[in-house]
Amino acid sequence: MSQKELYNVAILGATGAVGQKIMRLLEEKEFPVKQLKLLSSKRSAGKQMIFNGENVTVEEATPDSFKDIDIALFSAGGSISKKLAPEAVKHGAVVIDNTSAFRMDENVPLVVPEVNKEDLKEHQGIIANPNCSTIQMVAALKPIQKAYGIERIIVSTYQAVSGAGAQANKELEKQSKDFFEKGTMEAEILPVKGDKKHYPIAFNALPQIDVFQENGYTFEEIKMINETKKILHQTDLSVAATCVRLPFFTSHAESVYIELAKDGVHVADLWNELRNAEGVLLEDDPATQTYPTPLSAAEREEVFVGRVRKDLDNDRGFHLWVVSDNLMKGAALNTVQIAETLIKNNWLK
Amino acid sequence: MSQKELYNVAILGATGAVGQKIMRLLEEKEFPVKQLKLLSSKRSAGKQMIFNGENVTVEEATPDSFKDIDIALFSAGGSISKKLAPEAVKHGAVVIDNTSAFRMDENVPLVVPEVNKEDLKEHQGIIANPNCSTIQMVAALKPIQKAYGIERIIVSTYQAVSGAGAQANKELEKQSKDFFEKGTMEAEILPVKGDKKHYPIAFNALPQIDVFQENGYTFEEIKMINETKKILHQTDLSVAATCVRLPFFTSHAESVYIELAKDGVHVADLWNELRNAEGVLLEDDPATQTYPTPLSAAEREEVFVGRVRKDLDNDRGFHLWVVSDNLMKGAALNTVQIAETLIKNNWLK
Repeated sequence: MSQKELYNVAILGATGAVGQKIMRLLEEKEFPVKQLKLLSSKRSAGKQMIFNGENVTVEEATPDSFKDIDIALFSAGGSISKKLAPEAVKHGAVVIDNTSAFRMDENVPLVVPEVNKEDLKEHQGIIANPNCSTIQMVAALKPIQKAYGIERIIVSTYQAVSGAGAQANKELEKQSKDFFEKGTMEAEILPVKGDKKHYPIAFNALPQIDVFQENGYTFEEIKMINETKKILHQTDLSVAATCVRLPFFTSHAESVYIELAKDGVHVADLWNELRNAEGVLLEDDPATQTYPTPLSAAEREEVFVGRVRKDLDNDRGFHLWVVSDNLMKGAALNTVQIAETLIKNNWLK
Repeated sequence: MSQKELYNVAILGATGAVGQKIMRLLEEKEFPVKQLKLLSSKRSAGKQMIFNGENVTVEEATPDSFKDIDIALFSAGGSISKKLAPEAVKHGAVVIDNTSAFRMDENVPLVVPEVNKEDLKEHQGIIANPNCSTIQMVAALKPIQKAYGIERIIVSTYQAVSGAGAQANKELEKQSKDFFEKGTMEAEILPVKGDKKHYPIAFNALPQIDVFQENGYTFEEIKMINETKKILHQTDLSVAATCVRLPFFTSHAESVYIELAKDGVHVADLWNELRNAEGVLLEDDPATQTYPTPLSAAEREEVFVGRVRKDLDNDRGFHLWVVSDNLMKGAALNTVQIAETLIKNNWLK
């Protein structure tokens, strides 16, 4: 396959927030699409969407939907991925899956192209897109790991509600208005749709993203810990995470502490690595109050890094503030970039 | 002086958010007030406030305002404290100062009564109330330090806008409404009133609280680092802080990582210490999604702790989520508790 070929592409979960972003990115990036198939649950089937100026009818996803599909971009939830990804592979499609279903499967590459695109070579039909909060952190840390080694990561996250889906966005909007108009707020979705209890997110902070595991960590925290080690190819890396949902719509921010494997590194050295890193934009100048924020990073493609500081007690310790649009680099964009990388390198098979 | 005596009390900054809370707490706690003097800038002088059912006229603060005052509670900004606290002391008053003006002065006790009330014995007329984000952290960590020793703290904060004053609250409210009604937001106050640039706080996160120092840390971060060491009486304690302003009105939350001085400690051991700690309430049960949030802690007196977890890589490492009302324990309540402790122990002098 050469770069000039065109491909039959399917988007599963086409009507969701990430699915729609994927479609827009395929247009914007002039992805070599021969035919685009939009797939969804039975409920959303029949909807009309416009791709490159033409109407496309959303179809209900079935195992046979993937006949003649070259690239299938999955973003419809873990259980659907588990059921349909193997079927798509049987039909010869390469699946890029946006759920956590296959991420820790040792036969499935977990890829952020700027960080570990070589892992794509080993794919057996399914490739996993990492968790949103993981993607932006490893994108920022890879150049530092490469230059100086990293022995330890402690991260506290500041995550947008859109990571919990479009319903969570609506809940934040409704609660924000009700807070002023009614003085009360109803919570039905967050912190986790389907979990036992719900708390207001407007004018609040919820230290729970995804469900709790037996060890007291949330699944979001466990995902960040395990995925980071896998993507950075470093099983002995210490990673700790505390994940918090906050009342903003777009972009995750992260307060990241790292310990390098080398002494004597300066902030200017890290700045240098970050300035030259693919997909990373350094926005760090205390004198002019320059740092990234969730609002400034929204709708942007890059991972933004600011507030780089040396720890005052530990010569190998550094603090960073990492912000990126959770639906773009954190989901849709990274998915499309994986597909582009497969094509560019003839790794689609 | 015995506990039955009554005292002439002055509140400087009486019309501000913290000043008003202090007055309410003096009422609620039946503080032994003989006469209450309310002091402010010239601008607010003349206002009427009600204390214990009686009208009190706010007076402009001058050096002579402190004649015959026993206890002066200062909450009107650092420069005013620097000017008027020594004058109040000259008149024989004991000043409890809510600003950063004297906190790191070695002759000034910096006190959270549950943590280091003995330091009050050494006062020379001025006692400093710590920074809001510091108070709640040391209140939660003191029982752990006492039982197991703490060698290191890394904290990322989630701080309410009310820490920046009543104007910041109004800014968050206006921006939140404008976001939906106009689609634009104007920023004039936050992150720091009087600093060069302003950014919207509604539906955003600002990694700047107080002004930047030359080393790239903000003054809020430096305050947390230095004050924590002073209050916990441990100059060799490693403390790192990243302070972030978020779009909620009340309560600061903190993601706190600590390293103990002992091996083999379990989560249950920390729970045990926290359950028995004065002023602390443990709210920690993942099975029932029980953890504190800014909204649940608002208007409450305690420091709430949840999400206590052992680090997955470091036997001495633990993570905690600490939440408290920044205007209550973080400011007004701690101020009043210092005054109560001085009286109870005959340390007023």
